Amino acid sequence: MTVGTELLLGDTIDTNAAHAGLVLAARGIRVARRATVGDRAEDIRDAVDQALARTGLVLVTGGLGPTRDDITRDVVATLLDCPLQFDESLWDALVARWAAVGRTISESNRSQAMVPAGATVLPNRRGSAPGLWIETARGLVILLPGVPIELETLLAEEVLPRLEERLGLRSIRSRVLRTSGIPESRLGELLGPLEESLAPVTLAYLPDQTGVDLRLTAWELEGSAADAALDQAETIVREAAGEWVYATGLRDLAEVVLAGLRERGMTLVTAESCTGGLVGARVTAIAGSSDVYLGGIVSYANEVKITQLGVHASLIVAHGAVSEPVVAAMARGAAERLGARVAIAVSGVAGPGGGTPEKPVGTVCFGWSIDGSVTTATAGFAGDREQVRIRSAQAALLGLHRRLTGR
Amino acid sequence: MTVGTELLLGDTIDTNAAHAGLVLAARGIRVARRATVGDRAEDIRDAVDQALARTGLVLVTGGLGPTRDDITRDVVATLLDCPLQFDESLWDALVARWAAVGRTISESNRSQAMVPAGATVLPNRRGSAPGLWIETARGLVILLPGVPIELETLLAEEVLPRLEERLGLRSIRSRVLRTSGIPESRLGELLGPLEESLAPVTLAYLPDQTGVDLRLTAWELEGSAADAALDQAETIVREAAGEWVYATGLRDLAEVVLAGLRERGMTLVTAESCTGGLVGARVTAIAGSSDVYLGGIVSYANEVKITQLGVHASLIVAHGAVSEPVVAAMARGAAERLGARVAIAVSGVAGPGGGTPEKPVGTVCFGWSIDGSVTTATAGFAGDREQVRIRSAQAALLGLHRRLTGR
Repeated sequence: MTVGTELLLGDTIDTNAAHAGLVLAARGIRVARRATVGDRAEDIRDAVDQALARTGLVLVTGGLGPTRDDITRDVVATLLDCPLQFDESLWDALVARWAAVGRTISESNRSQAMVPAGATVLPNRRGSAPGLWIETARGLVILLPGVPIELETLLAEEVLPRLEERLGLRSIRSRVLRTSGIPESRLGELLGPLEESLAPVTLAYLPDQTGVDLRLTAWELEGSAADAALDQAETIVREAAGEWVYATGLRDLAEVVLAGLRERGMTLVTAESCTGGLVGARVTAIAGSSDVYLGGIVSYANEVKITQLGVHASLIVAHGAVSEPVVAAMARGAAERLGARVAIAVSGVAGPGGGTPEKPVGTVCFGWSIDGSVTTATAGFAGDREQVRIRSAQAALLGLHRRLTGR
Repeated sequence: MTVGTELLLGDTIDTNAAHAGLVLAARGIRVARRATVGDRAEDIRDAVDQALARTGLVLVTGGLGPTRDDITRDVVATLLDCPLQFDESLWDALVARWAAVGRTISESNRSQAMVPAGATVLPNRRGSAPGLWIETARGLVILLPGVPIELETLLAEEVLPRLEERLGLRSIRSRVLRTSGIPESRLGELLGPLEESLAPVTLAYLPDQTGVDLRLTAWELEGSAADAALDQAETIVREAAGEWVYATGLRDLAEVVLAGLRERGMTLVTAESCTGGLVGARVTAIAGSSDVYLGGIVSYANEVKITQLGVHASLIVAHGAVSEPVVAAMARGAAERLGARVAIAVSGVAGPGGGTPEKPVGTVCFGWSIDGSVTTATAGFAGDREQVRIRSAQAALLGLHRRLTGR
């Protein structure tokens, strides 16, 4: 549970919930539900009450600070019938903490030294509000501060070790296979019939702008048994859809392409029109890309295609700037002029304007030059300008990946 | 309510919830509680059931796709006792959508044309899963897809107008002043003392990677009275911090810069090293940029700086690739070789490697050439590789904006 009106208003994005979800899942704790409430006593009380009834274990972050809107501790103490008591040693620690930075603690902080009867204090070395571990007949309530760095540190150092011991836990293993160039629905057709055969491993589809991640999770297994089950599941998935899988684990396609080029001792350049530098930006986002990627030409205006890439004006007149002959010439020109073995070229109609009956918005041509041999392709992308550009950059990298790996 | 096991596992950060919170709050709708559940029928049913009992109005995102784990539509239809019916016109629209990009829709997408009896279909022009508006005796349930761009578009274009009518809301007027190049704390020092004088208009600081948005909100006022109050507040804010305000409303800095160049009849080119194409990508993200932006050179390797931009090797040897003399030469070379009146050049140490005591990670040099006169600057950015690159692209555009406007 995350507490804070700013979360409901959307002024703050709830990264704590995601972080807690990640580290809890890794320890084998399945989060049944997540809730966010504002800084209102009745809302906090109801939500904690319902969560306890549901699972008997609730983690609450936020509302432990010294200001008037920090009421989580009081509300939970009342709900669980554990009256707050002043904790001398906690107060001394707070006083010392402030003294260490040459300040005198204000009385308003005394509230932070109030501890529900029977609760365990989880020391917070990153901030002033400690975590609280409250075990009652109704179940376990863990209160943690909402400041991300304090939450993360307390979770790792104080909460997870205690939870593992208390619940006798083991971690859940999962594996992600990244796909691109195939719609989620087609993947569903290929893999849906096989999902039963993956058991006890489950398959989840996580689509985004550039592809669909397939997450395999071995819920019931541990250690090597989990790895074996995941290996078997990965084999089944790859047999059915392997041609679309470009990576295992959360690697960016640009990183995969760079690794493939590095292996082959190849250098890369780009020639971009409608993507305007997006492909270069994707590639250079990867640390260490400079040993493979030399640079590129953003040839947005036809004049630049002609002067900087040596595309013949007649080619543009005859076929249009968005055509396979032109992207082929762009790729060849970039490879020759910048002196690279591999070049990617992109030219398309990103929209909203510029579409024609023959070449509607979303029409994008790609050229790939590998050691002088050039291949081209044309795609039609749905979506607005931003989507067309993002998908074009992905398709440009994917096309090179498929050509390098012979798919 | 957001639906998706990946959200509970923390694989995906729930930005949809924050976005929905923002736009609903702006319309004066208080979100009482937020919940996230996994792709499990009983969890989804219980959460929707409880939310309906609590407020009678629940917005659900996620789980509307074509695969087996997309069960939100079915679960809600059952809960509300509105049996699913095949919607011919919706199916035809889906078929057309796929045909438009030269693909044949697969039968597995038929599930996306199933609509709960009595529900209103909210057309999704950004994706295949439509939104659903389901009004029953128990209250109103709105189902929207989980893909952020689809959710955001449907909320703005279909849901909020209907909600305003249905709930008889008067929209709360607010205005955003975008700033860049000044930290939130400094803005707070400049504007904090003035906040009282803005009443009844309130001021919120919304910082992000590229600057701080100042949101002025006229809570209690309507129509022209609200506009007058906002005008007055904007005047006060601009008197104190006007030099840092680059736009009114959510316009991208690249759009502002392009408009400024267009007014002056100027053309723009880019020469990028550490940003690798990000500046060009920012500029070309704006529809209609082609009348101002000609293109650019991504000179990631020094060899490309020399051959494509005419930077003298001796300059790089003497000062290093990350130096003001080199970015000056890059800007001059780009303007001359690509034939533009204005050029932006960027070269820096994005990290994680490449830092030195004299030029630590985050050191970035900028060059701006305007009608042949070149100015340069050097900045030091905190953050990781991605942050340094994003901030560099923003600073490159901001520097040009300030030079064009004489600030």
